[in-house]
This record gives sequence, C-alpha cells and structure tokens, in this order.
Amino acid sequence: VAKCLEKFKTTIFTQMSSLAIKHGAINLGQGFPNFDGPEFVKEAAIQAVRDGKNQYARGYGVPDLNSAIAARFKQDAGLDIDPEKDVTVTSGCTEAIAATILGLINPGDEVILFAPFYDSYEATLSMAGADIKCITLCPPDFAVPLSELRSTISKKTRAILINTPHNPTGKMFTRDELNEIARLCVENDVLVFTDEVYDKLAFEMDHISMASLPGMYDRTITLNSLGKTFSLTGWKIGWAIAPPHLTWGVRQAHSFLTFATSTPMQWAAATALRVPDSYYMELRRDYLAKKQILMEGLKEVGFKLFPSSGTYFVVVDHTPFGLENDVSFCEYLIKEVGVVAIPTSVFYLNPEEGKNLVRFTFCKDEGTLRAAVERMKEKL
Amino acid sequence: VAKCLEKFKTTIFTQMSSLAIKHGAINLGQGFPNFDGPEFVKEAAIQAVRDGKNQYARGYGVPDLNSAIAARFKQDAGLDIDPEKDVTVTSGCTEAIAATILGLINPGDEVILFAPFYDSYEATLSMAGADIKCITLCPPDFAVPLSELRSTISKKTRAILINTPHNPTGKMFTRDELNEIARLCVENDVLVFTDEVYDKLAFEMDHISMASLPGMYDRTITLNSLGKTFSLTGWKIGWAIAPPHLTWGVRQAHSFLTFATSTPMQWAAATALRVPDSYYMELRRDYLAKKQILMEGLKEVGFKLFPSSGTYFVVVDHTPFGLENDVSFCEYLIKEVGVVAIPTSVFYLNPEEGKNLVRFTFCKDEGTLRAAVERMKEKL
Ligand SMILES: CSCCC(=O)C(=O)O
Ligand SMILES: CSCCC(=O)C(=O)O
Repeated sequence: VAKCLEKFKTTIFTQMSSLAIKHGAINLGQGFPNFDGPEFVKEAAIQAVRDGKNQYARGYGVPDLNSAIAARFKQDAGLDIDPEKDVTVTSGCTEAIAATILGLINPGDEVILFAPFYDSYEATLSMAGADIKCITLCPPDFAVPLSELRSTISKKTRAILINTPHNPTGKMFTRDELNEIARLCVENDVLVFTDEVYDKLAFEMDHISMASLPGMYDRTITLNSLGKTFSLTGWKIGWAIAPPHLTWGVRQAHSFLTFATSTPMQWAAATALRVPDSYYMELRRDYLAKKQILMEGLKEVGFKLFPSSGTYFVVVDHTPFGLENDVSFCEYLIKEVGVVAIPTSVFYLNPEEGKNLVRFTFCKDEGTLRAAVERMKEKL
Repeated sequence: VAKCLEKFKTTIFTQMSSLAIKHGAINLGQGFPNFDGPEFVKEAAIQAVRDGKNQYARGYGVPDLNSAIAARFKQDAGLDIDPEKDVTVTSGCTEAIAATILGLINPGDEVILFAPFYDSYEATLSMAGADIKCITLCPPDFAVPLSELRSTISKKTRAILINTPHNPTGKMFTRDELNEIARLCVENDVLVFTDEVYDKLAFEMDHISMASLPGMYDRTITLNSLGKTFSLTGWKIGWAIAPPHLTWGVRQAHSFLTFATSTPMQWAAATALRVPDSYYMELRRDYLAKKQILMEGLKEVGFKLFPSSGTYFVVVDHTPFGLENDVSFCEYLIKEVGVVAIPTSVFYLNPEEGKNLVRFTFCKDEGTLRAAVERMKEKL
C-alpha cells in the first residue's frame, strides 16, 4: 500500500456493517436507510435505462442534472450560478471530496480540519500530501474554538474543511461561527471546502450554506449529494459547486479519478432535485419522529446525551456502562446486545479524544429503532 | 489547480464530443456505442432498482458481482481466485486505474508506460508523484522495443503499465512480448498494471491476460470493466483483480476515492457477466463487420492504414491529406468534413510523436460508419 495510506484501516463503516451481518445485530451504524427512496425517483431511473441513456455522460454532468443542481442551490443559498461552469457531478460526495482535495491541494499545503471528521477527509488529505492541522470540537455543544482557529491559521493555510450539519455529532455550525470562519478566510486568503450532504436534515435551526455568506462564494467549494436526502445512498450521485477558477481543479481531478458518473442515475437525480419543498418538509417530519424515538430510548437506556440539531446521527457518552473505551463498548454492544453503533475514535487524529463517544443513526424504520432500544434496555 | 495536474487540459474525449455536438459532426471520436446494451442487462438494472437494491453497496463490491467477476476470470485466465479477497469493484475502469496507482505507488517510484496511452494513466501517475518512464510503440506494428524496455528498468522501477488490446492503436501484445515483460518483472521484482477492458474485442488472435503467465498472478493487477463489452459505457462498472496483498492498497484508495459503486448497476453487471460465450462471439462478429466497413472506407478515402487486432479503434496516418499535424487535421475534419476523430498527440508524453496519427472508432451502427466514410470521400 502507498505510504500515505499506511495508517488507515478498513473503513469503520465496512467493518461495522459486516459485523452487523455476522452477528445478526440491528445496524444503527453506517448511515443508510433501511427503507427505499421515493417511487418517482426510482421510476425516473428505470425510464432512463429504458430510454437508452446508457452511454458515457458528459464528464462534468448530464446537462439536465447540472441545471437542477444550480436551481436547488439558488433556492438554498440564494445565489445564481452557471450550471455549465460552476457545477461538477461526481460519483457520490466521497468522490467530490477526493476531487476537491486532490485537484486543489499541493503537498505541504496546510489544511484545517475539525475533529471528529468523516474518515475520507484525512485519507484524501494524506494522499494529496497536505499538512493537516486538526481542531477538536468538544462535547457538550461541539462549539468551534474560535481563538484556537485564529491561532492555527498561518501563511501556509490553503483551506478549511467544514461539515455542517456535522457527521457524527449532529452539530450545526452557528451563524456566528460561520461568519467568523468566513472573515478569517477572506482576511487570510483561505478556501473553504464545505460538506453539506445533511443540509436538508436540519431540525432545530435553518441550515446556512457557507457559500451564501458575503464574499464567500468565490472561495468556497460546496459539496453535496443525492443519497441522504432521497434515501438512495447506493446511487452514488454527488456534486461540487464552485466558481469556475476552482471548478477547474475539481474537474481535472474528477476526469482522471472516474471520468464521469452513471448516466441513468444522473437523469433520475435531475428528476429528484426538482421536488417541491414539501418533499423536504415531510422528510424532516419523518426523521424528527425517528430521532425522538431514538433519543428518548437512549436516554432511558442510560446514555449521556448531547443536543443534536441535524443529520441522521446522534453521538452519546457510553461511560455510564463502565466499558473501557468506544471500541470495546461497540464490541460488547454487537456481541452481547445485538446492536451496532460506530465508535468515534476513528473520527479523530488522536483516537483518545473519541474514547467516550459512540454514534447511532436513526435512518431506520421506527420498528427497528424501537427494537434496538428494547435490546439495549434488556441487556445493557 | 494542484501542481501535479497543471499540465493537463480538458480531456480530449470531452473536447471532441462537445465539438461533435456543436458542429453536427458524425462522432467517431470518443469510444461509446451509438446503440444500446442487451435488453436482459437493462432489465436486470430495472429489477434491481425495483427490488430496493438502492443503498450503499459493500465497499469492495456486491458479493454476487465479485463472484461473477471471479468466475469470468477463471474462464479467461484459467485462474481460481477468491472473489472476496482478490476482487474490487470500482466506478469504471478509470477509477480502478486511479485506485491502483494512488493505492500502490509512492512519490519517486518509477513506473514504465508505453505511449501512446490512455490519458488518465499519466495524470494519475502524476497525482501519485511517480517518476514516469515512457517507451514509445511505433507504427507500423507498434511492437514493444524490448531492448529499450530492458535498459529502462532500474532498481527504482515499481511497476509497468500495459494495455492490451491497446487503445488507441488496436495493437495486441504478443505472447513473446508478454513473456519477456513477465520475465523482466519477476527478475526485477516489478508489478504489472494491465488494462484489459477490450479483452473481448480481440479479432485476430486470442487475448492473453498477463496474470495468466507463470508466476505473474502474484505481481499483477488486472483492470477491466463492463462498459465496452456490454455497450453500456455510461454505467461505470469496473474492477481490479489482484492477490490480497496488492488488493489491500487498491481497496484503501478506492474506499476514499468513491467508497462504493452504484448498487443497482452492480447487480445488473453480475447478471451481464454470466452470459454464455456465444454472447461474446456474436459481439465480435458484429464488430468485425463494422471494422471492415470502416477500414475499407478509410483506405478508399486515402488514409495510410496500420494493422489493428483488437479494440474498437483504428489509428491511421493522415499525412496524405497534407495538413500540418493531427490536431489541425482533426479540426479540418470536424469543421469542413463533418466527422470527428481523435488526435493522438495527447496520448504521448512528447506530443510530436503523435502528429501523423489520428484515431477513429467503429463502435457505431453500420449506417453511421458508412455515412462518415461518404463524407470523407466527398470532402477530403
Ligand atoms: C460511506 S459511509 C458515508 C457516511 C455515512 O453514511 C456514515 O457516516 O455512516
Ligand atoms: C472516458 S473515454 C474512455 C476511453 C474511451 O472510450 C476512449 O478512449 O474513447
């Protein structure tokens, strides 16, 4: 294996999902729904396959999808962008992250990351040879330590990577935090890479897109995807939105990482993104009900909870149950209780920092959530 | 844009396919069929979407597809491999190439490449920081200059990248060439990355898979895909086959480049790969007829032809028409004649070497091929 990847293990999502199958455990680990996406989106995919939309798509996206993405961004961020010049369709947001980092970061560039973080950030930064500067968000509120951020920015800082709503904690970056990050980026000529795949799963405050802040569009790459919002995580449609001078780097990396993304799925994604707002409202209403079931259950089971404003994840403190760390807790939970959670230590540069915390997802039908809670009540 | 990507332009395939649309030219440039894949494969995709196979696949592939790939490899290369440990499903062969190179090559490693080459090889090697050593295959027969190869291999050589049947020339590596490359690799402890996406389009001799040569499986990564063989280039299903110690690097890079590949497409690909051999025989028969139409036509038009044994491409010498180089010839061909070909200079480290050659594809219905020939007869 290449040196830059030596320190990484099999992704925790793969490890935990296969343990779930092996032990017949209820999988509240990896973030995929156990229900299916909307029929009209599935029908659009079927129609695209039937209609012969089966050859190479244009590298940066089927025109119809680029337009639909731009139209949604107009609604979400209030910005008029050029679908032909500012939008790049990728094979999932994971590819959008890789193309952004490999397309724009040079060896030795400093990039600031907030821990806990989705594991691909660190791995792709390592592939690009970046010098990672990590700032930890701490419970209970996972607030951004702004003075630490200020002192971490240097002449060599090329980008700050943020994720809001935040996986795994459910934290949403507040307007004040975003404003200060924006101010620092403008002042120090720093880019922002912002992963907003959970933007439609904001329960307690409105999602704020970094690109919408004054002066920020020109230095921001906004990353998003179809999977979470349309319960079709396996379709692997993602995208990056950025001004043309930054899009160039993203597209070049994308050209050589995958060249183009599945054509019929892109046509279906274009149909999906034209839903009226009521779709998203209903989605949030459904997820809020699931969230309440899980949160109340976890509380009754005896976990220490933290407030969570968005995503379909919650992070809890498992220490009331007396196990050594997050990994040993999750092992016990799978083998003795029959429930899968994700240990959070893999989301930190320094695994010690995550040792008290584990993540549960509530993107499962209510029966499954209740059954998981029952198992924990009985056996924990 | 990152420095390692600075020298690259918009991929020639994208450039030429958009010029084709702009000028209403007949597109014999980028290698995608203008006819659709088999109905039973499309139906399998439709069924997968209907059946709710729409969430994240296992990162390294849907088990059924890993098995189908291993079974086909058994038929093709005569080797028994473990579908769980030796096969990684990727988002097209382009991603398999990227994951192989980024997963196994360290900065400063020497990698030997044969020009002309598919452009992503050079770009991903550059992203990995490889030191590229390029050996040119020359017309008329594009034979491997074995003594040059021997003197190019050094202590720092980590891998040789081959592509057989070869895009753009249609050359197939002969048994003698492959044996000598294999011998050198064993002697010098060098890996082989072999792109065999056109393996089923071998018209004049049997395709030989590098991995099938004695002692080679253990040092070979075999790259292949669904698109060319099943006329579904837009589905973006590829794979890498390698022994577990090399698969590890490929899988780690893949995990962080895309994580997983479109789930419903993978199920359909598994169905496709279980076709009886008669499917491939019919495919070759159809393509042979197309090839004859194009080759005869190009000869009558006045190009200088070279023998081509495989792929759905032919390379010809355009100099009888008196234009300065391959790029100016292709421009003239699009604007004045209404036909798109691919200039080959982009497939060389030193563009000068490709200035006499252009590539045509015959993966189009016979009427289209005849119409393109007619246009050239009239206007060239
Ligand atoms: C490939 S897993 C992607 C992110 C996610 O779903 C998770 O964090 O569980
Ligand atoms: C992305 S284009 C892939 C290869 C091919 O089809 C071509 O060389 O035209």
